[in-house]
Amino acid sequence: MAAQGVTPRSEDYSRWYTDVVQMADLADYAPVRGCMIIKPYGYELWESIKSALDLRFKATGHKNAYFPLFIPMSFIQKEAEHVEGFAPELAVVTHGGGKELEEPLVVRPTSETIIGHAFSDWIQSYRDLPMLINQWANVVRWEKRPRLFLRTTEFLWQEGHTAHATEQEARAETLQMLDVYADVAVNEAAIPVIKGLKSPQEKFAGATESYAIEAMMGNTWALQSGTSHFLGQNFAKAFDIQYLDEDNEQRYAWTTSWGVSTRMVGGVIMAHGDDKGLRLPPRLAPIQVVITPIWKTDEDKETVFAFADKVKAMLEDAGIRLHLDARDGLSPGFKFNDWEMRGVPVRLEIGPRDVQGQSVMSARRDVPGRDGKQVLPVGGLELAIAELLENIQSSMLDAATKFRDERLHECATYDDLKEIVGNGWGLMWHCGTSECEDKIKEETKATSRCFPLDENSEWNPQGATCAVCGKPAFGKAYFSRAY
Amino acid sequence: MAAQGVTPRSEDYSRWYTDVVQMADLADYAPVRGCMIIKPYGYELWESIKSALDLRFKATGHKNAYFPLFIPMSFIQKEAEHVEGFAPELAVVTHGGGKELEEPLVVRPTSETIIGHAFSDWIQSYRDLPMLINQWANVVRWEKRPRLFLRTTEFLWQEGHTAHATEQEARAETLQMLDVYADVAVNEAAIPVIKGLKSPQEKFAGATESYAIEAMMGNTWALQSGTSHFLGQNFAKAFDIQYLDEDNEQRYAWTTSWGVSTRMVGGVIMAHGDDKGLRLPPRLAPIQVVITPIWKTDEDKETVFAFADKVKAMLEDAGIRLHLDARDGLSPGFKFNDWEMRGVPVRLEIGPRDVQGQSVMSARRDVPGRDGKQVLPVGGLELAIAELLENIQSSMLDAATKFRDERLHECATYDDLKEIVGNGWGLMWHCGTSECEDKIKEETKATSRCFPLDENSEWNPQGATCAVCGKPAFGKAYFSRAY
Repeated sequence: MAAQGVTPRSEDYSRWYTDVVQMADLADYAPVRGCMIIKPYGYELWESIKSALDLRFKATGHKNAYFPLFIPMSFIQKEAEHVEGFAPELAVVTHGGGKELEEPLVVRPTSETIIGHAFSDWIQSYRDLPMLINQWANVVRWEKRPRLFLRTTEFLWQEGHTAHATEQEARAETLQMLDVYADVAVNEAAIPVIKGLKSPQEKFAGATESYAIEAMMGNTWALQSGTSHFLGQNFAKAFDIQYLDEDNEQRYAWTTSWGVSTRMVGGVIMAHGDDKGLRLPPRLAPIQVVITPIWKTDEDKETVFAFADKVKAMLEDAGIRLHLDARDGLSPGFKFNDWEMRGVPVRLEIGPRDVQGQSVMSARRDVPGRDGKQVLPVGGLELAIAELLENIQSSMLDAATKFRDERLHECATYDDLKEIVGNGWGLMWHCGTSECEDKIKEETKATSRCFPLDENSEWNPQGATCAVCGKPAFGKAYFSRAY
Repeated sequence: MAAQGVTPRSEDYSRWYTDVVQMADLADYAPVRGCMIIKPYGYELWESIKSALDLRFKATGHKNAYFPLFIPMSFIQKEAEHVEGFAPELAVVTHGGGKELEEPLVVRPTSETIIGHAFSDWIQSYRDLPMLINQWANVVRWEKRPRLFLRTTEFLWQEGHTAHATEQEARAETLQMLDVYADVAVNEAAIPVIKGLKSPQEKFAGATESYAIEAMMGNTWALQSGTSHFLGQNFAKAFDIQYLDEDNEQRYAWTTSWGVSTRMVGGVIMAHGDDKGLRLPPRLAPIQVVITPIWKTDEDKETVFAFADKVKAMLEDAGIRLHLDARDGLSPGFKFNDWEMRGVPVRLEIGPRDVQGQSVMSARRDVPGRDGKQVLPVGGLELAIAELLENIQSSMLDAATKFRDERLHECATYDDLKEIVGNGWGLMWHCGTSECEDKIKEETKATSRCFPLDENSEWNPQGATCAVCGKPAFGKAYFSRAY
């Protein structure tokens, strides 16, 4: 019920973020170190993202399943790079049912190993391929510096796991799912993203190649918002995922995995939020329209509520997600601030004069002040609101794209990059080695985000050299501060 | 792709069950002791149950949220009865991020404690009440004798947690959610259930009173399919959930919790399955209608598939969940068995003669042989199928109800009970003490299922005595073998 303001972004972006998450009732820290409680409003937002993804997974032929939370320690150890990458982050169950376990169980940090084990059982022949599975689950990766939604010891996500007969198919799947993620980010979350290949240092532990969508937050930092991994035959060999091909030969399958997590909620907050709080894109907003009735006398109250109820029923019938703020004892101004804080895209004010005029006063969350207000007649209101919501959705995407594009810089030299780090992303020729990445990170705090697919027509192009070490470049990579 | 038969129920009911679960591709044991892998077909069934429940939770004003998987050991210990009940079943994380933890973390067996902690923070005033929260989550209770869906170390469920200003409200909530569970069981799963009060011995550890819905399986055993607990002020006192009432007095809240789990999938299997395999009620069936095209020549194949595609599009447009079995190289008979095993309510056979007659041959899964078959003209087929599915849904409920009602017995004496145990449930006057329950269990293997609400107009009725010990009876209770 808090309607006090958040810390201004310009003053302390990090505190602004935490203020918004807590004051908009999205989530809070849990009494367990590194963990969070996702409150109803934040969970509804996650459910919107979930539905948008799940629909697309099913449309591309994937099926949901569920695999165990616990993974035998020996499984994790089967893929050498995988165990090396995840060992420092594991939570380990050593006791169960009152006894010490013979083999410790790892709380899944990701499920390539246990699903790889299942696939080796499920896949016998080329007829069983492709195997297209997704899992909605919680995972645990021990986190020393937790941040709500962005980095928590436990988080919610989906992890897709697929197996294919050929390398080509598995590569196509990896890129298809990257496209699905970009589609959801752009068209549902109104967040423009750059699709690219991660450097060897930044890739998933155990992958041959990792791809990601990278989004720019309000402070210009990057947020990796979804990843899609081509796993080659690494896990197929570690878990013996073999199939009999059409010529009766035993072959290893090619696998992929891909995931989006509750981190994306953090992305929505930071890509769109302002000093008044959250701003939610209409397609994901748990509440798209809030009605705030305004009255002074009891007589007015009755008329106003009767009209507000009519408007409510009309809009709900049209499938609009709506809340009528009937709270007593709070001023309209308090309520306006409160719903602005919560990022509701459209506010409808209904007072006695609106009832007389058979109209409502609408206010856009994304356009402050008078410019965002207009009187809408109640006749045809459902169409006007639907159009307004679509308009807000595309305006938000346009604004975020403009903000981002103005902060993308081509950097011909490493000095160019140094100059812009912290105020945007730099696109620079890069060799792809961890030596250069470590040096850049140490000197500028920027990390390599990705080799954007749109900016690299070929890898290892003739004559191109790394802006840092001068050796042959793998391609152009974006560098930026990142979460 | 297995179409071999399951073990007949009469031969070995327990093996029949496992055969159905595995051969219908619902689930399988995981490489982790006590855990299971829910396969896509089983998960879709769970998703149907989930949607049916979630819709009703939201309609009764509850909101979803998410709380941490890990609970500090000290939390579990705060409610004396709670820790005593759950201690033997806990999985404990002792190491995280490469270090031994200062306080071990319990993998949640249920979330009254951590949610109680959150409620004490969220609830300050009577204005914050009622607090109506639900969580969809995985939980872990160490299981020595696992059975797929029925008892597994990890399982999926929902747990509702609510807090109220008065005892009366909390009691009403407890019974409302019991009704919601009964509604889903009866009207979605086509399983008749008996609503009743659990005995003190069988109640939830920490509850004041537990209620359950009890269903009869195909071997007459009972399955507790959902529970709703009135927690009194037990957790409110343990976690200091207090609110300021309208008179400015600090008061403890009254809380409830209630849950349904993947166990209900087991209930669907055992309430309806037969010797051909699974039988799914249409409202929950992932596939409601399967089309099996029948052809011999290539020419026939083309005509048959063109027609089958038309029928498919027509039915899918009407919102019917449908699968067209286009597999090559398998005989129609094999496919029939295969889909019968998977419990699909309606099969449509389409051969060259059906194309000529512009009709399809439908076969009901719940009515074997010729009696279940009829020719349906393609004109208006979507309506005919919708009606047929409704018909199957109600027939399945009728059949399960008839089966159950024939096996419910009034037992005037303990000897009466002994006679019928294993072939039905006995309703008998019962004092409610664990002494009598232990004796009955030892001598007959039957446990007290519940004191049915419909059969007890008052508790401790004048003059009624326990059929076992002769002391005053608390009420009439059902006794039965149970899962």
